[in-house]
This record gives sequence, C-alpha cells and structure tokens, in this order.
Amino acid sequence: MARRASAEASARRPVVALLTDFGLQDHYVGAIKGVVLGVCPDVTLIDITHQIPPQDIRAGALELAAAYRFFPPGTIFVAVVDPGVGSKRRALAAQAGGYSFVGPDNGIFSVVFSEAPPSTIVELVETRYFRPAVSRTFEGRDRFAPVAGWLARGVPLEDLGPRLDAYTTMSFTTARRAGHVTEGEVVRVDRFGNLITNITDVMLRAMDPPLTVAAGEHAGIAVVDTYADTSPGALCALVGSAGVLEIAVNQGHAAELLHIGRGARVSVVSADLAEGLGPKSRD
Amino acid sequence: MARRASAEASARRPVVALLTDFGLQDHYVGAIKGVVLGVCPDVTLIDITHQIPPQDIRAGALELAAAYRFFPPGTIFVAVVDPGVGSKRRALAAQAGGYSFVGPDNGIFSVVFSEAPPSTIVELVETRYFRPAVSRTFEGRDRFAPVAGWLARGVPLEDLGPRLDAYTTMSFTTARRAGHVTEGEVVRVDRFGNLITNITDVMLRAMDPPLTVAAGEHAGIAVVDTYADTSPGALCALVGSAGVLEIAVNQGHAAELLHIGRGARVSVVSADLAEGLGPKSRD
Amino acid sequence: MARRASAEASARRPVVALLTDFGLQDHYVGAIKGVVLGVCPDVTLIDITHQIPPQDIRAGALELAAAYRFFPPGTIFVAVVDPGVGSKRRALAAQAGGYSFVGPDNGIFSVVFSEAPPSTIVELVETRYFRPAVSRTFEGRDRFAPVAGWLARGVPLEDLGPRLDAYTTMSFTTARRAGHVTEGEVVRVDRFGNLITNITDVMLRAMDPPLTVAAGEHAGIAVVDTYADTSPGALCALVGSAGVLEIAVNQGHAAELLHIGRGARVSVVSADLAEGLGPKSRD
Repeated sequence: MARRASAEASARRPVVALLTDFGLQDHYVGAIKGVVLGVCPDVTLIDITHQIPPQDIRAGALELAAAYRFFPPGTIFVAVVDPGVGSKRRALAAQAGGYSFVGPDNGIFSVVFSEAPPSTIVELVETRYFRPAVSRTFEGRDRFAPVAGWLARGVPLEDLGPRLDAYTTMSFTTARRAGHVTEGEVVRVDRFGNLITNITDVMLRAMDPPLTVAAGEHAGIAVVDTYADTSPGALCALVGSAGVLEIAVNQGHAAELLHIGRGARVSVVSADLAEGLGPKSRD
Repeated sequence: MARRASAEASARRPVVALLTDFGLQDHYVGAIKGVVLGVCPDVTLIDITHQIPPQDIRAGALELAAAYRFFPPGTIFVAVVDPGVGSKRRALAAQAGGYSFVGPDNGIFSVVFSEAPPSTIVELVETRYFRPAVSRTFEGRDRFAPVAGWLARGVPLEDLGPRLDAYTTMSFTTARRAGHVTEGEVVRVDRFGNLITNITDVMLRAMDPPLTVAAGEHAGIAVVDTYADTSPGALCALVGSAGVLEIAVNQGHAAELLHIGRGARVSVVSADLAEGLGPKSRD
Repeated sequence: MARRASAEASARRPVVALLTDFGLQDHYVGAIKGVVLGVCPDVTLIDITHQIPPQDIRAGALELAAAYRFFPPGTIFVAVVDPGVGSKRRALAAQAGGYSFVGPDNGIFSVVFSEAPPSTIVELVETRYFRPAVSRTFEGRDRFAPVAGWLARGVPLEDLGPRLDAYTTMSFTTARRAGHVTEGEVVRVDRFGNLITNITDVMLRAMDPPLTVAAGEHAGIAVVDTYADTSPGALCALVGSAGVLEIAVNQGHAAELLHIGRGARVSVVSADLAEGLGPKSRD
C-alpha cells in the first residue's frame, strides 16, 4: 500500500487551460477555443475561470497562482486579463515550473513566476503564429489563442519571438509578523463567502498556539482543522486548500456575516499571550 | 427506416461528468479537472452543473438524478456537495445502472441509487489513489478527482477500499394521490422559471382527465403537451423533459408570476370532478 | 517569416459547438453533451454560450454569427433558442460556409445564413437519428443532440431528412447612411458593458474623417483604435473584434455610463462637417 500509483501516462494529449475576465455571457471564450482547436485539433481545453472581475489583473494573478500546480506537467496556460489590449504593452510566452504560460506582460503572471521562476520568456512578435489580422481589442482570440495552439503542437517557445530578460511584476502585500501577532489581509472571497487571506500555513506554524483570529468587528475566532469542526453557522478560521488562512462560516457565508471583503485586515494572535494570561506573556 | 442507428462505438474515451456546488467564479472546478487529467490524460470532462446552491445536498441529488441517464454507459460521475468535507463522513465510489459514482456518502446519491440500486459500493480509503496530501477543505480536488481519474484508467472499484453494505440516504417527499386529487410539491425551479414538481407522468396518467393544476394562488391551470400549445404569457402545466409535471409560462417565468418556489404545494385535480359537473363526480 | 504556419492537421476530432439559452444552473447542457458523447465518443464539445436571454432568438442569432467563423472547418454548431419547442415549427440541419448547423427553423441561423448562404438544408424528420422518445419540451436533448452526434460520426446530411428549399429568417435592422451621418443601433451589450452596434467597419471607412459618435445623451465621442488609446474612465468608440463599431469606456462600463442598452440609437457623424467648419461642408 505504500506504493503510490503512477500518474504518468505514455501519450498525453496537450492541455490548454484558460483564465480570463471575459465572462460566460458572450461568445468570446468560445471563439478563443475555436481558434485553438483550429491550430491543434487534439487539444484538451479546460476553463479555470472566466469570471475574474473585468480588468482586475491582480485578482487574475492570484487565481491563476492558486490553480496552476494542479494541472499536469506541460499544461499551457492562457491568462487574459488585459486592460492594455491593443496598446504597446508586450505579450509574452514563458516556461516556468514545467508549464507554459501565454498572455499579456502586465503582471498577470507575477504570483506564479515568484513561486516558479521562468526558465525562458519570449516576446510574442512572430506574426506567422498569430491569426492573419489581429484585432486591437481581442488579442486573446487573434494572438494568444493561436500561439497556445502552436505550443500545443510542439512549436518551440524560442520560435515565437526574441528572449526577454525581464517581465512586468505587480507587488502584492504580504502578511507580516510582529511579536505575537501576524497581520495580513483578505486577498479573495470565494463563492462560499470564505475570506481567503495572505497568511500562510508556514507563518501560522511559527506562532505559539493556541491561535485566534480577528477580522472586521470579530475577534477570538478559533482556528480549526475543517469547517465541520464547528457547529453550523459558527465562524471559524482554518488553513484552506490553497495553504493559507481563511475565515469561514460552517454552512454559511463569512463575507456577509463579517461585512468585509478583499483588502480587509486580518490578525492572528497567540491567544494566551494576547489575553495577558499565559506565562509567555511575561517573557 | 425502422432500424435505429447504433450508437455503440468501438473505442470510447472515458467520460467523467462533474456536479458540484463550487460555482464558476473560483478556480476550484479547474483544479479538479487538472487533477483528473493528470491521472487520465485521455478523459473527456463534462460539466453537469456547478451551480448547486452551496451545501444543498438535496438539490444536488435531484439534479444528478435528472441528468445521469443521458450519459453514455460507463460514465464516471463525481458529485461534490459536501458540507461535511474533512470530517469523518465517509467517501464512496459505487457502480449503479452501468455507471460509476464518486463522492461523499452524505445522501447526494440518494435519488440515483433509489432508481438504480448500486451493485457495488466501496469506501474510499486506499490513499495511494489520492493526492499525496488531502486538504481537509477540498476533498473534491485531492480525493474524489484522482479516484475518478483512476477509475477512468481502469482501476477496479474494489481496489479503492473495502465494500460498504449501506450508504447514507435522504428521504424525499413523494407526491400522493387521495381520491381525485394528487398532491405534490415543487422540487426545483429552472433557469426559465419553470416549476418542476415531484408528480410523475405515471401518476397523472392514472387520473381521470381532463386534469387541472393548482399552485400558489392560481387554480385551474390547464395541462398541455408543450409550451407552445398556449399563448405567450399564459400559465400552463405539462410533463416536462424529466418525466414529471412542471408549471410553466409560455415565453415567461412561472416562478415569478406565481411568487412561489421550491417546496411550494402543487395539486392536480380531475377537473370535471372538482367542479362537481362531470357525470363521474357522482360515481 | 512571410510563410504562415499551416493550421491543417491530418486527423481531426470532430468539434460540436453549442449555443443555447439554457443557462448553467440546470443539468440541461450536461444532458445534451451526454447524448452527443453517447453517439460520438470522440467528439470535442465546446460551449459558445448558454446565457442567451431566455427565448431571445434574435440575440442568439447575433451571438452565433459573431462566433462561428473562428471555429475550424467542419465544426457542427447546435443552436437552441427555441420558444416553439414541441410545436410544428420545423427542425433543420444545414451546410453553410464549410460548417454544419443544427437547430430549430425559427430564425436562429438568419445572420449566419445571410453571410454564408447554405448549400444544403434538410428537415430533421428521420427519427432513427433521434433519441427513442423525443420530449416535447427538450428537443435539444432528444433531437438536436443526437443528430449532431451522427453528423460528427459522418452520417451525410441528406440522410437526416428531405431537402428544404427555404428556411425561416428574421429581419435585422441595418445601419443607414444619410449624407454625412450614419445611423445605427446597439445590437448587444457585452460583459464589459461595451455597446456593440450594427455599424460596420466598411460603412465607417466610407465616411469622411474625423468621425465622432453620438449615443444616449453623449455626442462627440472620439473614434479610437483601441481602449488604451484613451484615459481610464473615458468614453470612446472603436471598431471592435467583430468588425463593427462599439462604444466603450476604457476600464469602465459604457452601458452603465450612458444608461442605454440594446436597441439604442447610435449616430456617426463626419465631425468637421457636423460642426460646419470643414471645407467640405460647403461642397
């Protein structure tokens, strides 16, 4: 039983995974997929999400970073949240962490590349890998989609354009520890109303338990292992599936209960110390 | 022309069909698909829906039951509406009706299994078929997704864990006939505002026509064959595509017109009898 | 570099692309896909959109027309916006522009067929290519889906039923030029709030620049090449990715800013002339 079954299959079909702010009401995502299939008919197309808030590069960068590592090696990610579409902002393709990434050079890959530094980045300038006419309002369809298709068909990254030594990054606030308190913030709110923070599991394990969490007007929120460890309707905090602290309500909606959202401050305190009761508070 | 074309193809790619309450704004469904593809690259992934109301096992059970029979034999269904994620509630895989089912043992398969009693059920305990670390808040990604991938690759159900003799069931209210009236309720409301009930076609055929339907503050709703049999904007009742009575408005939204939703009572009456006019009313 | 890479692959998997008003909350789209896969397991299924407003054939026709040309040759499109489902309205399959189309004969293909006149149209009457029982409320599942599957498997169009010489068309308002002004209207509003009109690129190029656009209570809107040519929050007009004029707000939502939507009038004027300043105004 100690043996882990091997997930490596012999002949993989290429996977192209898409993340955009295009939504699902319009034909835009369908058109992108049609173009990819026109270049590489054998591709498997997967949606990560298309509901990134319009033009919110930051949200796209975080969502992509939360998802990419669960895809098979070699997956080609196309990420298009692109307020600068049609302008002179560069477009890139990169290899990083065993994956390929295609999209605008506007910071959308910031978080992924900080975790998995790219081994190669190229600027997308070889027009023969684009559609014949590139719309200045929809490069996702005319530039990024065909490039992803060609990568899926085995075109080397280097053929797509000259190497880039640098790429655009966005800075993200990181949580900070000061003594017995770690201060962070909510970085996204999911469908369940869970408030996902930038406070990592590693930071929590470096603190003296028991820990409690404060956010909005609530303090003393207990840290548990899973939602079901509390009673339905109760607030709790836990390390979620992305390896960071989240605040949740068992079978409820934490964002609505706390009336907070993205950007809200979250504090984790070593409970005994915070209350001035533990022996360590006098250390 | 009497011959029906044969739908059986020689070499099928495995199909994994997903039903969850994860929504589409987050990367959760994408991560599940990435994991399945990492195990079984050749799989075809299909979404049934991811818009089950959060934690609403009952709604998930009904939607899954409405859908599964339209998939090809051998389809592997992953159904994750899982308020008890990370707790001691069991996880299962089963074979039923020529299909496989994977998910929490919390009642989500109640309706399917009442129609298609499972031939084999196993508890998912063989960790080598899971991801190396199983998040206590996202078993869909770390436990159910890889198990579905392994089933798609041909791992026998029995290898996943020991047999279970029983599984969790939820009871669903069934419609009841009393004399010339059948009483049921709305079990779901679809995108078109159609009010889908638990009153089956079989029950209706057992009643004396003509039939009329009452719901909310409306009575005498005519039973028709299809929406277009009434004028636009008119209320009607009919046996819908799931084989149960639904109340609809031709080119309109019945739920809004009647101000009712799930759980609302619906009565079907044999019209002549109800009005005391028909000869049978004196039988 | 002048050589364009060839997108023609040797062995294509058939592509079936879906456009409906079924939404994503219910199992309806999943059931359709299950049926297609049951007939043709090797198919690639792509969603164009399922968010066409309920019963809005006109919106469906426009969205389909905006999307189809980006799919690979041979793609089979299933378009189901079908208020007349179950009635005597005909159902058709057609070949046009190198593609196949399947759906109700209610005008949904009007715009596509006006651009790409069909070479063959047949009425879908051969029941052996349907599911054994056809629901009168869900022909998408029982009639159109299996027919698409059989087409994907190579069944000739002619086998599906007798030829039709005519099909139902809807008329769409076209923009008109009168002197120095072109008058059109908004035909759809996309997720970003962009107001997409029926004024084509060709019409604009026939006018004397510089051009300005008027819509709602705003006039003098400048025509630019792409969103990023204006400052964030500024109104602009441009030829969008569908080759028609759209009104947009850079990183904003034009429909909300202008308080207008589908059907709103839009005028393009030759700016110098409109102001009575240019030499040509005295021509």
